[in-house]
Amino acid sequence: MPVLAGGLLAALTVAFGTAVAFAPKPRITWEHREVQLLRFHEPGIYNYSALLLSEDQGTLYIGAREAVFAVNALNVSEKQHEVYWRVSEGKRAKCAEKGKSKQTECLNYIRVLQPLSATALYVCGTNAFQPTCDHLNLTSFTFLGRNEDGKGRCPFDPAHSYTSVMVDGELYTGTSYNFLGSEPVISRSSAHSPLRTEYAIPWLNEPKFVFADVIRKSPAEGEDDRVYFFFTEVSVEYEFVFRLQIPRIARVCKGDQGGLRTLQKKWTSFLKAKLICSRRDGSLVFNVLRDVFVLRAPDLKAPVFYALFAPQLNNVGLSAVCAYDLSTAEDVFSHGKYMQSATVEHSHTKWVRYNGPVPRPRPGACIDSETRAANYTSSLNLPDKTLQFVKDHPLMDGSVMPVDNRPRLVKKDVNYTQIVVDRTRALDGTAYDVMFVSTDQGALHKAVSLENTVHLIEETQLFQDFEPVQTLVLSSKKGWGSVYAGSRSGVVQAPLAFCGKHGSCEDCVLARDPYCVWSPSAAACVALPQAEGDARGLIQDMRGDTSVCPAWPPKPSPPPGSSSLSCPGPAAPSSPRSPWLASGAGPSGRSPVALLPPFLRDQAQHVPRMGTFHLFCVPPGPADIRLIWEKDGRALETCVPVQTHMLPDGRAHALSWLRDAIPEGAEYRCSVLSSAGNVTSKVRVAVARAEATHQEHWSRELSAWRAVVGEHSRMMQSWRQAWESCSQDAP
Amino acid sequence: MPVLAGGLLAALTVAFGTAVAFAPKPRITWEHREVQLLRFHEPGIYNYSALLLSEDQGTLYIGAREAVFAVNALNVSEKQHEVYWRVSEGKRAKCAEKGKSKQTECLNYIRVLQPLSATALYVCGTNAFQPTCDHLNLTSFTFLGRNEDGKGRCPFDPAHSYTSVMVDGELYTGTSYNFLGSEPVISRSSAHSPLRTEYAIPWLNEPKFVFADVIRKSPAEGEDDRVYFFFTEVSVEYEFVFRLQIPRIARVCKGDQGGLRTLQKKWTSFLKAKLICSRRDGSLVFNVLRDVFVLRAPDLKAPVFYALFAPQLNNVGLSAVCAYDLSTAEDVFSHGKYMQSATVEHSHTKWVRYNGPVPRPRPGACIDSETRAANYTSSLNLPDKTLQFVKDHPLMDGSVMPVDNRPRLVKKDVNYTQIVVDRTRALDGTAYDVMFVSTDQGALHKAVSLENTVHLIEETQLFQDFEPVQTLVLSSKKGWGSVYAGSRSGVVQAPLAFCGKHGSCEDCVLARDPYCVWSPSAAACVALPQAEGDARGLIQDMRGDTSVCPAWPPKPSPPPGSSSLSCPGPAAPSSPRSPWLASGAGPSGRSPVALLPPFLRDQAQHVPRMGTFHLFCVPPGPADIRLIWEKDGRALETCVPVQTHMLPDGRAHALSWLRDAIPEGAEYRCSVLSSAGNVTSKVRVAVARAEATHQEHWSRELSAWRAVVGEHSRMMQSWRQAWESCSQDAP
Repeated sequence: MPVLAGGLLAALTVAFGTAVAFAPKPRITWEHREVQLLRFHEPGIYNYSALLLSEDQGTLYIGAREAVFAVNALNVSEKQHEVYWRVSEGKRAKCAEKGKSKQTECLNYIRVLQPLSATALYVCGTNAFQPTCDHLNLTSFTFLGRNEDGKGRCPFDPAHSYTSVMVDGELYTGTSYNFLGSEPVISRSSAHSPLRTEYAIPWLNEPKFVFADVIRKSPAEGEDDRVYFFFTEVSVEYEFVFRLQIPRIARVCKGDQGGLRTLQKKWTSFLKAKLICSRRDGSLVFNVLRDVFVLRAPDLKAPVFYALFAPQLNNVGLSAVCAYDLSTAEDVFSHGKYMQSATVEHSHTKWVRYNGPVPRPRPGACIDSETRAANYTSSLNLPDKTLQFVKDHPLMDGSVMPVDNRPRLVKKDVNYTQIVVDRTRALDGTAYDVMFVSTDQGALHKAVSLENTVHLIEETQLFQDFEPVQTLVLSSKKGWGSVYAGSRSGVVQAPLAFCGKHGSCEDCVLARDPYCVWSPSAAACVALPQAEGDARGLIQDMRGDTSVCPAWPPKPSPPPGSSSLSCPGPAAPSSPRSPWLASGAGPSGRSPVALLPPFLRDQAQHVPRMGTFHLFCVPPGPADIRLIWEKDGRALETCVPVQTHMLPDGRAHALSWLRDAIPEGAEYRCSVLSSAGNVTSKVRVAVARAEATHQEHWSRELSAWRAVVGEHSRMMQSWRQAWESCSQDAP
Repeated sequence: MPVLAGGLLAALTVAFGTAVAFAPKPRITWEHREVQLLRFHEPGIYNYSALLLSEDQGTLYIGAREAVFAVNALNVSEKQHEVYWRVSEGKRAKCAEKGKSKQTECLNYIRVLQPLSATALYVCGTNAFQPTCDHLNLTSFTFLGRNEDGKGRCPFDPAHSYTSVMVDGELYTGTSYNFLGSEPVISRSSAHSPLRTEYAIPWLNEPKFVFADVIRKSPAEGEDDRVYFFFTEVSVEYEFVFRLQIPRIARVCKGDQGGLRTLQKKWTSFLKAKLICSRRDGSLVFNVLRDVFVLRAPDLKAPVFYALFAPQLNNVGLSAVCAYDLSTAEDVFSHGKYMQSATVEHSHTKWVRYNGPVPRPRPGACIDSETRAANYTSSLNLPDKTLQFVKDHPLMDGSVMPVDNRPRLVKKDVNYTQIVVDRTRALDGTAYDVMFVSTDQGALHKAVSLENTVHLIEETQLFQDFEPVQTLVLSSKKGWGSVYAGSRSGVVQAPLAFCGKHGSCEDCVLARDPYCVWSPSAAACVALPQAEGDARGLIQDMRGDTSVCPAWPPKPSPPPGSSSLSCPGPAAPSSPRSPWLASGAGPSGRSPVALLPPFLRDQAQHVPRMGTFHLFCVPPGPADIRLIWEKDGRALETCVPVQTHMLPDGRAHALSWLRDAIPEGAEYRCSVLSSAGNVTSKVRVAVARAEATHQEHWSRELSAWRAVVGEHSRMMQSWRQAWESCSQDAP
């Protein structure tokens, strides 16, 4: 039966969104060996999944499987201390009897690594399904052997989710309470006031815990500190063919003491709300939370949560980052309506907005000056009505929406695992939130929001074995900033930027990296805080406009037979840059050989919208040939590889391939400058309607291949002719 | 905060499914110019979206915008008749006044093209937002000018959805009833008993109609014929952050006369149910219906519906096909429970299963022998209780699940638009349902289910302009089978198979196309029904085992400087195939030049699971070099392009690139056979964990490029040396 073109287009538009802006591929990829990375790996030790940074001490503590290490935070390859916490053979056997794997699951996975005091850490491990906690003395770097029961602080099963934060010496944890993992709990371990959640579906419904942190209030405000928990759980308020996951932000008040009778030793301040991260038109819905980072900065009135998501449904490789103002969340908790469970037809429940009267003091609110003024000085004083209400209504009706009501970043074909964010100032003082997101293939992407788009500055391959990054920690100490990544196999330390890799002012500007500026005095691209001397001379342009760069002496041609990255700026093609130009002849003394055009025009193609394609520019010519790529009349932003080979007759053979992905048709030009003149070849690349299949794309790919091979054939034929004439000359 | 490796893996497993089997890329792609396609296009006429095939008359009727054509069904390029139904200028102006586009929307889009009798068609068009119907006399090929009001039979707006089927001279339609498109309707146009749906959300909730057809019951069964409708609508029973779409199968009974008082002139037999198409683990949910095809065959007890779906959420290019037994649907309607709307907290509704008593006769059931025996001879006799019940309970509780409870085909990176299915018998008598699915880029994919996988036999680029295929029709007349595809720009006719394109027995077997067999007597790959002569000698193996092919004389080497498709079979590398081998010397008389290995080993790489990669085999050698690719010790199934260039010194330069996508690591070998001996180079391609990013893939891509360029450099250096020695010899 027929399909409406209009209807289909409309459907496709809805499917793709009126403004589908998936983040592009990273502009530069740093292969493992290209950049300076420091690594830590202890032979025989795996799962470097707990990282704790002490910037004051300059130490990075690493909780791995059956071991804790202290390494130099400036250089993680320098191990300072180590201590082992192995599971005894007996314990492993006992664990294996319960049906667990002796080689893996029945080992001791460190799950809690928190500061206890200036000289001790609080450490918990799964300990062969017998979760145990201890104190680690930092002076002797030994465990005290306290053997505390870890139930509720640490999961039994290394496969189960967990999160924890130490607040004023007390540990707040979200994890599973039992061996099977069927009883989730958010609890506070405290000598005088331990608290936990109710074991009830409305409170926690098969949660996967992701993150927890404390938000301090200023004492002047008279308000209580809050501890926020982030997790994904099964939704009670939504329904589809299958159970739907829903991301939650939940909070409790630090001063909570539980109730006197109702909610005795239970949270009286536990409230949770939906965290929404989706495109406004509903075409992309990200409802599985992967990680959260709390961005605090002096110039931010309130902290901003950066949350990393994946979709539950139809996830063929999709990730998104949404940012939330803390005040948005607090509004929902402090002023929003509650949800209520209503019974339907005796046996069904539906969660709907509760519009009825709400007891006072407000259920779930922290004890603040207002509450104290009403004579409720502690949660133990709260009236039963309030306590009963919050026990039955932990879920708020309102949703916590992201800043600007849309994601900060949406990327296809990637599974991001962790996120950290550094707020930094560019040269002109503008603040940029630089997002570092790690992938499940061991890479790190660095992205920044620019005007209306997201710019993926670079990708760095941290782990050569492509193992997923399990944890990410940021040290943004000025001038010494690093990102630390933990995986199954080790810890890698990377600088916040690789400014030095940009060899020219143009490259430095085109990178559009807020950390990097061009220093004319040093004639180098350097990290902004480190730039010494005259700050007025520094050059940076976050729009990538290289006209801010001073005119320079020409770059020397690449040495023969070498490969390089050609990152041309908007230099006028009329000023070739070779030092040999004056002579007008090649180095071997023969008359200059004619320049052949690059035959770019043979590569006209249709490409999918935003589908990657290659263009090849293969001009043989004199030794001093230099290629310049242009797109729609402007110099390219990306770097284009060039291979140059010198030939004996003064000719050079250059092969350059350009990779791009475009939303709409564009005209590309490859200009070749040389002493024999300048030649330009151009081609128009059109964008096929909607998204073409990869099959289409690969057909184009092969066509491009054939074009190159054809070009090579022609060259070989011309060489054959030269050969034949030469051999005819020979005796 | 740390991420569990286990948790992440579990999450990824859930996300990707324990057995994520996306259909692979088509094995062969036929470019537009490679194959025999017939096309019809009338200059100035667009939107060839209504196709009606009359196999008896051998005619294909085409309803386009403002025109109806009759073309030869055996060759659509032969126009037989044409008639125009243009909108008058006055009508267009009037339509434009209502805010519509004079150039496009205000024209006459043919939406109904149905057989009325042996000599007439029933035709309706939007007619500048004044839907009108008429009879087309097939003898004179002129419209009678009846100017019937098309409301309810044809939409006003060409962008609105529609479907219709003619049953015993009466038209059953699903479309919108009004100008705005806000009132959906399923209706029967009838002189004596016109019927329509209630205008109520429980009956139809913003539906997008896709397909309708009649299922006849045998008179002996005493049952009524049913008319089924397929559409996607907004779900009342599900809820998420955004409104959820849900595919529906609905049915009415042909004998329905409406009720006497309640449901007067309304359907008394309208029932609908959810159509589910998703992976069993819920990771992929396809809830937008695109097209339906009813497969009828003598060997099928009951018809099978093949339905084509796309996902509403996170659709970055995903399509699925699910097949349904008609009996499954009928069970849900005839024996299943109903859903009931329950009011919650005064203002909300929730749809739940209705468990209470159900009136008799069963609400919504057709009048059958049992009902008649109870004295209800017509719907006009049905008791009010039954009628009131079905008026309030049109939605069944049960879901209609696909055969085997899973999709027949799931494909990434493609948007399928239409489907037809042909049930055919292979040589050994096994029946195969061959699925023809068209894409929104003007291509046609042919797929068949083999054992536990889906085999994408081939892709054919039907439309050079990459326009979406709007409609697909199948003629499976034995020996003359064709697929007809309509798009905005024309109609293309393609054969069901391109058997003749497979030049060898091996290629014919490797194609695994149920239509194609190898005929030794004809020494050709031919379509099965056409194979004449000795059917016992015919060869076919749907597992692709080419050992069924007899041993053959060697294929001649490709001519010099040509490109070809090399599809080697499992020939032993020890028997080279060149006719020049006996001489032991190249054609130019020089001593044979040594064979260089292909340096395949430099291309070791990690690839994403099922991610496409290339391997290049670039061996220079004597003129008679012949390449053979092997994978894991077996000859390849796919065809590998080879470019060969002859050089004056008796050498040849060959360039061959292999494209593949693998689920797990494999070892590839490129063997070069020649008079100078045989050389093999091999490489192992490993599969990176989970899905790697395209970035990773492109890095590998560039590495492979560099390897080729490196190889070329080495060759050029050796030629340079030869040049230098030659030029030194020169005077």
